[in-house]
Amino acid sequence: MDQMKPCPANSCPQTPLTFLERAATVYGDSPSVVYKTTTHTWSQTHRRCLQLASSIAALGIQRGHVVSVVAPNTPAMYELHFAVPMSGAVLNTVNTRLDSQTISVLLRHAQSKLVFVDYHFRALVLEALSIYPPNIQHPKLVLIMDDVVSDSIPSSSTVSDYEGLVKTGDPEFKWIRPLNEWDPITLNYTSGTTSSPKGVVHSHRAIFVMTLDSLIDWSVPKHPIYLWTLPMFHSNGWCFTWGMAAVGGANVCLRKVDPPAVYSAIQRNHVTHMCGAPVILNMLSNFPSAVPLRNPVHFLTGGAPPPAAVLLRTESLGFVVSHGYGLTEVSGVVVSCSWKPEWNLLPAAERARLKARQGVRTVGLTEVDILDPVSGLSVKRDGSTLGDIVMRGGSLMLGYLKNPEATAKCMRENGWFYTGDVGVMHPDGYLEIKDRSKDIIITGGENVSSVEVESVLYSHPSVNEAAVVARPDEFWGETPCAFVNLKVGIDRKPTEKEVIEFCRAKLPHYMVPRTVVFREELPKTSTGKIQKTVLRDNAKAMGSLVAASRL
Amino acid sequence: MDQMKPCPANSCPQTPLTFLERAATVYGDSPSVVYKTTTHTWSQTHRRCLQLASSIAALGIQRGHVVSVVAPNTPAMYELHFAVPMSGAVLNTVNTRLDSQTISVLLRHAQSKLVFVDYHFRALVLEALSIYPPNIQHPKLVLIMDDVVSDSIPSSSTVSDYEGLVKTGDPEFKWIRPLNEWDPITLNYTSGTTSSPKGVVHSHRAIFVMTLDSLIDWSVPKHPIYLWTLPMFHSNGWCFTWGMAAVGGANVCLRKVDPPAVYSAIQRNHVTHMCGAPVILNMLSNFPSAVPLRNPVHFLTGGAPPPAAVLLRTESLGFVVSHGYGLTEVSGVVVSCSWKPEWNLLPAAERARLKARQGVRTVGLTEVDILDPVSGLSVKRDGSTLGDIVMRGGSLMLGYLKNPEATAKCMRENGWFYTGDVGVMHPDGYLEIKDRSKDIIITGGENVSSVEVESVLYSHPSVNEAAVVARPDEFWGETPCAFVNLKVGIDRKPTEKEVIEFCRAKLPHYMVPRTVVFREELPKTSTGKIQKTVLRDNAKAMGSLVAASRL
Repeated sequence: MDQMKPCPANSCPQTPLTFLERAATVYGDSPSVVYKTTTHTWSQTHRRCLQLASSIAALGIQRGHVVSVVAPNTPAMYELHFAVPMSGAVLNTVNTRLDSQTISVLLRHAQSKLVFVDYHFRALVLEALSIYPPNIQHPKLVLIMDDVVSDSIPSSSTVSDYEGLVKTGDPEFKWIRPLNEWDPITLNYTSGTTSSPKGVVHSHRAIFVMTLDSLIDWSVPKHPIYLWTLPMFHSNGWCFTWGMAAVGGANVCLRKVDPPAVYSAIQRNHVTHMCGAPVILNMLSNFPSAVPLRNPVHFLTGGAPPPAAVLLRTESLGFVVSHGYGLTEVSGVVVSCSWKPEWNLLPAAERARLKARQGVRTVGLTEVDILDPVSGLSVKRDGSTLGDIVMRGGSLMLGYLKNPEATAKCMRENGWFYTGDVGVMHPDGYLEIKDRSKDIIITGGENVSSVEVESVLYSHPSVNEAAVVARPDEFWGETPCAFVNLKVGIDRKPTEKEVIEFCRAKLPHYMVPRTVVFREELPKTSTGKIQKTVLRDNAKAMGSLVAASRL
Repeated sequence: MDQMKPCPANSCPQTPLTFLERAATVYGDSPSVVYKTTTHTWSQTHRRCLQLASSIAALGIQRGHVVSVVAPNTPAMYELHFAVPMSGAVLNTVNTRLDSQTISVLLRHAQSKLVFVDYHFRALVLEALSIYPPNIQHPKLVLIMDDVVSDSIPSSSTVSDYEGLVKTGDPEFKWIRPLNEWDPITLNYTSGTTSSPKGVVHSHRAIFVMTLDSLIDWSVPKHPIYLWTLPMFHSNGWCFTWGMAAVGGANVCLRKVDPPAVYSAIQRNHVTHMCGAPVILNMLSNFPSAVPLRNPVHFLTGGAPPPAAVLLRTESLGFVVSHGYGLTEVSGVVVSCSWKPEWNLLPAAERARLKARQGVRTVGLTEVDILDPVSGLSVKRDGSTLGDIVMRGGSLMLGYLKNPEATAKCMRENGWFYTGDVGVMHPDGYLEIKDRSKDIIITGGENVSSVEVESVLYSHPSVNEAAVVARPDEFWGETPCAFVNLKVGIDRKPTEKEVIEFCRAKLPHYMVPRTVVFREELPKTSTGKIQKTVLRDNAKAMGSLVAASRL
């Protein structure tokens, strides 16, 4: 058959922005956003986003300009996921837990033209701008007042007001469609567990595919009640920001995530779905006043494997936990531990072991594999041979902004994206991450997965959190060094020696930590991941263990 | 922001074929195909398709060759939806209700290199080949024996046996991936209600998008039990062929669709989902032995609006009916009557009226509109102004095979695909088809929608089926002419005059049929649509009504 070429009607750019207009028609009277005493419908959200997009354009923002947002999970934050790209601009949501110095660097790197800032982060952003070099033009600012009374905000000629932009905008605005589905829609800076932040650029096409893919993989029905515990700035809320418009969900917003707020929101709004890192599950399950949920809540977790104990506790409360895996670079959850009904018959510990695996690719991802770093061939499906986790598919990023070297390093010529994660393939075709490549500890020539050592530490009854990193060693090159945070209110604190012996009973000798450091708190990224770079520096600063002391 | 270009990792071709390999991993032990006494699992189906694909390639089939299938909804028919494109070929499923002459024309037009034929259609296909001109090479044949004992089949050197190809194939075959997502995957000839058949070519990309879109729009959960009442050769079963692999569904196959077989399959297999034209719903609801279903069955209907009476009867039996709209040219259901919970409170007749509307675009379709044929602008959202239904989106066809004129006529330079349907937009943004452009009757300068007249006829207690076409008229140009099939077992057959009077009470004078013809049977296409071209010819043959007789 002769090759037939695409034409304008079938190759029109695919974009998640088309979901909103449809939501206004199909789910017009259904709640779109719920926050404190405010409830919007999808008709209202559609109208407000058009108004906002028209006002953004009126501020001089053009196709391809970057517009940043520094805000918690509020209605404004949600609306900007549509309004900013509908104005033709690229949405850059900024991690609110970053310091002003880093934010300043990011805004300049992004050449952000306009910054929406929640009143709570006003000082932070003003400080970030104050350290701009004099020759660099400041972005315009729009203040999101939320429910703060307006007279508490000092007037300033450079600052517009969010609700003002909505009110003065044109609800008949013809939103700016992408010219090409490869046009950028978002810019997300990675959380930087292993290196300095990089700006991940996603296309309209990638977000379109990821959004549909995630809805199918999680079997999201129509009209879910979705509680925003995952920060929207974290990989665009794994695309459920746009996804809720596709299925007419209600976005329940929370300014601050703590157990009383979460449980109260679940009960008040009859929440059906929520996402978050395992740290959120841990927090919810350890909450002393936690009582079993009235109705099941589907909880999609990712970012780290959920520890068995946490799984058991949360599931007994009524959370239906699914485990997925993704990276900012792939737009969302592209591998998930697709659950088999027959696994429900297994003992709890076995169920937890299976669920802690990252799993299989979602239908939207084209391929995933684990490659031997030397031969480049697929590793054996034996559950133990380590290799590089690689992927290809429609939801992968365009690349890192202004960083072709970093882009080329992971988006390889061989057609694979190298995730930087190291894992194994189990005989049943489910993959499991063993570590970030950079977190692997090489001791006496053996590769030690820090995650495996941590999982043993987590099984210790007194351990709340644990992280294992490499400590330089004169003899072995590196040895495992554990940083441990103990549970509150335990009867007796274990000693370093006891913890080491606990590990020795469960691990090969070379994998056992040689050092255990107790800490009140472990350093974390904004998304709740433990910052191993910091701990690695700490371990380095401790110096080499003297070889003699260990032989 | 500078434009960033796609690279191999993110622009790898999207194809529904990747769903199968995943299904083997995720749903490996779950049933994939259920038929008579045979049940396959997804592992088996995956293995069989690889074997089959390798055998197809071994027969000399190359990338881009057309492979045809003439078969009912059997396991082989299902497997070929994967195996044929996995060999690099283009799948062409042929309508089994066509005559040998037409099949011969289609196979030659498609330049089919290989034909899989179910034993039941062996004579039909051999006849089709016997009328090939002598200079045209015959395609190779593969006979699908199904459960017929093999010694009843005469041996022939040109004929291979389906199960033989499966058995001798290589389960480790590296299936042929598309080089580009715009590569063709299917060739479907349209049913030809309005003109001679045209060969619709779809890309891997289009089928990928349509499959995901349909799963979301119908909220298909994991592990549905899907009964194949819709012929798979009809627009590839609206992409649920590939969709079942994405969600691990069980494909319950039926060689022949009649009420006892359908009800028995529903009960035996605990069917949850099925699709079909309203004629199937009608058939199921009129079955005298129908008893309410034990569990709800989701029924997606399309191809024509479901008549109110049929909706009421089937819904009272426990079918949950959804109504969608699509065309072979757009791969599946791209507009659906998305149901609003508040509509459940309306009276039954009102619910039926709302559900008969085609509805709103699905999330995967980029845009749909109704354009005034003269100005090209969107028609008023008044529910009465007629216009051309147009679309654009990722699931649209590449075009008609070897027919650039027909392609250009509907895939216009203005970026719209013209469906050939005429409809109205209701004030709430839901569209409703009023007719095929060619079925519109123009009487005294007024446009009459044949569908509207038919819906009145359907409300007559004695009418089983009705179709209204144009009859030439010396004075009015055309007048509505009704062909009516009466219900079986009615007390008294109405007269032509009574039917006309019944319509007169419910329609404007100019819309009332001037002629009513009673028929034992109405001519239908293979997909159950009434063939109006045939009826139009019949009406023409009746000659013009003499103007005097009507004034």
